[in-house]
Amino acid sequence: MTETIKVGVLGALGKVGSEVCRAVEQAPDTELVARIDAGDDLGGLVGSGAEAVVDFTHPDVVMDNLEFCVRHGIHAVVGTTGFDAARLDTLRGWLADSPTTGVLVAPNFSIGALLMMRFAAEAARWFESAEVVELHHPDKADAPSGTARRTAELIAAARRDAGLGPAPDATSTALEGARGADVDGIRVHGLRIRGMVAHQEVVLGGLGETLTIRHDSMDRASFTPGVLAGLRAIADHPGLTVGLDHFLGLD
Amino acid sequence: MTETIKVGVLGALGKVGSEVCRAVEQAPDTELVARIDAGDDLGGLVGSGAEAVVDFTHPDVVMDNLEFCVRHGIHAVVGTTGFDAARLDTLRGWLADSPTTGVLVAPNFSIGALLMMRFAAEAARWFESAEVVELHHPDKADAPSGTARRTAELIAAARRDAGLGPAPDATSTALEGARGADVDGIRVHGLRIRGMVAHQEVVLGGLGETLTIRHDSMDRASFTPGVLAGLRAIADHPGLTVGLDHFLGLD
Amino acid sequence: MTETIKVGVLGALGKVGSEVCRAVEQAPDTELVARIDAGDDLGGLVGSGAEAVVDFTHPDVVMDNLEFCVRHGIHAVVGTTGFDAARLDTLRGWLADSPTTGVLVAPNFSIGALLMMRFAAEAARWFESAEVVELHHPDKADAPSGTARRTAELIAAARRDAGLGPAPDATSTALEGARGADVDGIRVHGLRIRGMVAHQEVVLGGLGETLTIRHDSMDRASFTPGVLAGLRAIADHPGLTVGLDHFLGLD
Amino acid sequence: MTETIKVGVLGALGKVGSEVCRAVEQAPDTELVARIDAGDDLGGLVGSGAEAVVDFTHPDVVMDNLEFCVRHGIHAVVGTTGFDAARLDTLRGWLADSPTTGVLVAPNFSIGALLMMRFAAEAARWFESAEVVELHHPDKADAPSGTARRTAELIAAARRDAGLGPAPDATSTALEGARGADVDGIRVHGLRIRGMVAHQEVVLGGLGETLTIRHDSMDRASFTPGVLAGLRAIADHPGLTVGLDHFLGLD
Repeated sequence: MTETIKVGVLGALGKVGSEVCRAVEQAPDTELVARIDAGDDLGGLVGSGAEAVVDFTHPDVVMDNLEFCVRHGIHAVVGTTGFDAARLDTLRGWLADSPTTGVLVAPNFSIGALLMMRFAAEAARWFESAEVVELHHPDKADAPSGTARRTAELIAAARRDAGLGPAPDATSTALEGARGADVDGIRVHGLRIRGMVAHQEVVLGGLGETLTIRHDSMDRASFTPGVLAGLRAIADHPGLTVGLDHFLGLD
Repeated sequence: MTETIKVGVLGALGKVGSEVCRAVEQAPDTELVARIDAGDDLGGLVGSGAEAVVDFTHPDVVMDNLEFCVRHGIHAVVGTTGFDAARLDTLRGWLADSPTTGVLVAPNFSIGALLMMRFAAEAARWFESAEVVELHHPDKADAPSGTARRTAELIAAARRDAGLGPAPDATSTALEGARGADVDGIRVHGLRIRGMVAHQEVVLGGLGETLTIRHDSMDRASFTPGVLAGLRAIADHPGLTVGLDHFLGLD
Repeated sequence: MTETIKVGVLGALGKVGSEVCRAVEQAPDTELVARIDAGDDLGGLVGSGAEAVVDFTHPDVVMDNLEFCVRHGIHAVVGTTGFDAARLDTLRGWLADSPTTGVLVAPNFSIGALLMMRFAAEAARWFESAEVVELHHPDKADAPSGTARRTAELIAAARRDAGLGPAPDATSTALEGARGADVDGIRVHGLRIRGMVAHQEVVLGGLGETLTIRHDSMDRASFTPGVLAGLRAIADHPGLTVGLDHFLGLD
Repeated sequence: MTETIKVGVLGALGKVGSEVCRAVEQAPDTELVARIDAGDDLGGLVGSGAEAVVDFTHPDVVMDNLEFCVRHGIHAVVGTTGFDAARLDTLRGWLADSPTTGVLVAPNFSIGALLMMRFAAEAARWFESAEVVELHHPDKADAPSGTARRTAELIAAARRDAGLGPAPDATSTALEGARGADVDGIRVHGLRIRGMVAHQEVVLGGLGETLTIRHDSMDRASFTPGVLAGLRAIADHPGLTVGLDHFLGLD
């Protein structure tokens, strides 16, 4: 890969994609060579000389996009959702035929969110209690958020590994829903508040002390440093990587 | 009432009662003249010269205690729970025959908690969204806490008075419990965390901004300034008063 | 004033002014009839039929703008800074000659910020300790923020009125600046953090409990509901009003 | 070392020491065999069969205590303050003559506080901005707290290692102290609030997002799980260890 990375953006007209375009243009070591959106011909990517793409498109089209890129040896940094085990297997198959190409599929490009999850998992074994609170704008469709569910799963796994049982809870009389949702035994609470963007708090507690790890995402732009970090590292990680944390030295 | 208020404490050996005893002994304008607990004869109160009692006992005995006090013209500051409309009516009947005696029944003696509820109610009409989060030690039996339910009811009433409809919430896919309990249309979330004592946060939000009002009770002693404020004011408030806020100039 | 308020915006091309234009256009009961910016002739306001203006301009031009508006009987809602006692006196003089015209000069149009300040002042007399923490983006020039200074002054005044002395502080060894700035005896701390917008926390504490009032302004748009509230009320408030809180029923 | 660790507590009558005694008595794998306080003969330790001591005493006596213990092959877990390089060197000298004995000198036994510091240091290189806020009861003599200073030093070191320059700060007009104390280039703010115990928040921020790590110590008892962890590990760590984090797998 040359010193300046030539980047194509798929979904370039979307909210996230246009932020990505701006970030790629502004960073000193990336160059935006193609903006592709629905209806555009992927063939333009090849002509543009793109070495890597960023894909924030739609579950319906992302697999076609990736098949094209892998066949043409173009690396991909993917934020589109909807990847299950079958899709990841398909990707691995394509990549087997193109051994120097890298694809990063990441559910979350916010470095702050990744650190929050990592620290929550590391701290979990030291505390009797752990719960997750997420706060989002009221236009969000799912509750709890995907990040909150994932965080709870990581905490639950860390507790199991450390031999911790269920967190103490003497509740005997409760209104329905008062103790939140149960994700692998970890309680998760979702607030929907106008004015908020995307926020999460992990609360851990033991004898006489609590530890709280909070991430506040105030602006869509918070995803872009993670996308750039992905672009900078992708050529050195051929094959499939799931999760940006593997590129951040957090594992 | 003399300059120094002579005080008897009912439930003097309980956790809360013993804190009350200490506070009454330490305050410059109150004097502890009687410690009464289960099995003690209330007659000792009369001999002690008590002008007022503080009652943190049990729903099973508090009505007998109060009947005795009102009949003997002894004011009462009551933190015991379990008062319903019927009990309050009974109290009013007894007080009608003893017109200079005052009884304060207060579900909460924490001045911070009372201010939190008051501010939440005042702010509610200015914001599209409002939810309540309470955090307590894991030995607590009920969820949400009584204070959280009361706060939600006050917010709901303020929203109705201002003509606000339901808070916006586009949730279409949710795990059971993820959006908390519904108290009069206000969402309430309860966390149970070792190391915590009693904490509550009211989160309000509108276009581009949020307002958060948080109360942290770190120590049982936080109830005592409110109890002392009740003792100082009770002689000037004959009859039944429900809620310490009426003594604090908050209404 | 007609049912729909005809509004001119001065400083219409500025960051705040353009948000105001959008809000005036979107609200059902206001109509944007004039956008004025540097170099435009104020005479256009008269032709446009503007009943009220919103002025977010510059201390150098705001007095000329207001003299023109008051002389033409156009109400004004003013967010421009730089008003001292002399300027306010000049304004009062002009308004004396135009007794049905109203001018609102407000240092802060965020309803959340106004409530935070109001609640801080109301709560101050009940707590031994009170400090202010403000957190802003690192491009801000002054520390602490004007809102934080004003909040501290309000707390200090409330404490004086209640006969409270200085807050307890046994600090005997301190690094310079560790205890923040002293504003009328109240400690104020300013953080400058990338990713933040404008945030403030008032922390009050007494025996065993604390009360925290936090305002988060995540978006410039948080000013617009207050500007609209000012426009709706200004015709009913002839003369000079300083502070939007007087229009919100908070006093 | 036998399955149940026989423990002597030095400073057994002090506030911290008596909590340690209680914890040692309650834990299933430790046995309290000696309570020593000022004036008691250390010789009793030997007769008691103590395998390890916990020392929360005073800088004036701790070195005598440790010399005695090391000479008698008794491990020591030390929370007493006042250790400088010279004292640590002296300790190393004594331990050289008793190669199976371990001494842990730890400025902080709170696992939550240790995790907060560790996470702050790990996260620091990913964010443009980082500041520290500590909140304590108003009877504290020093500002900022030792933990806050240490946290700032760790953050500063991590930033240097990552090649980060000074955090952005455009402040050009400031009240004295408004931006806090400067510890190695990191701003540290200390609040003194009645009702608080010991609390600290590390605030990190980058483009559009912030990460906040908060530790709340509500009760002196929060030190005891760390002391027990030290006792359980000390026999496996002969020689001098400074900092409990080395026993927690955090390095």
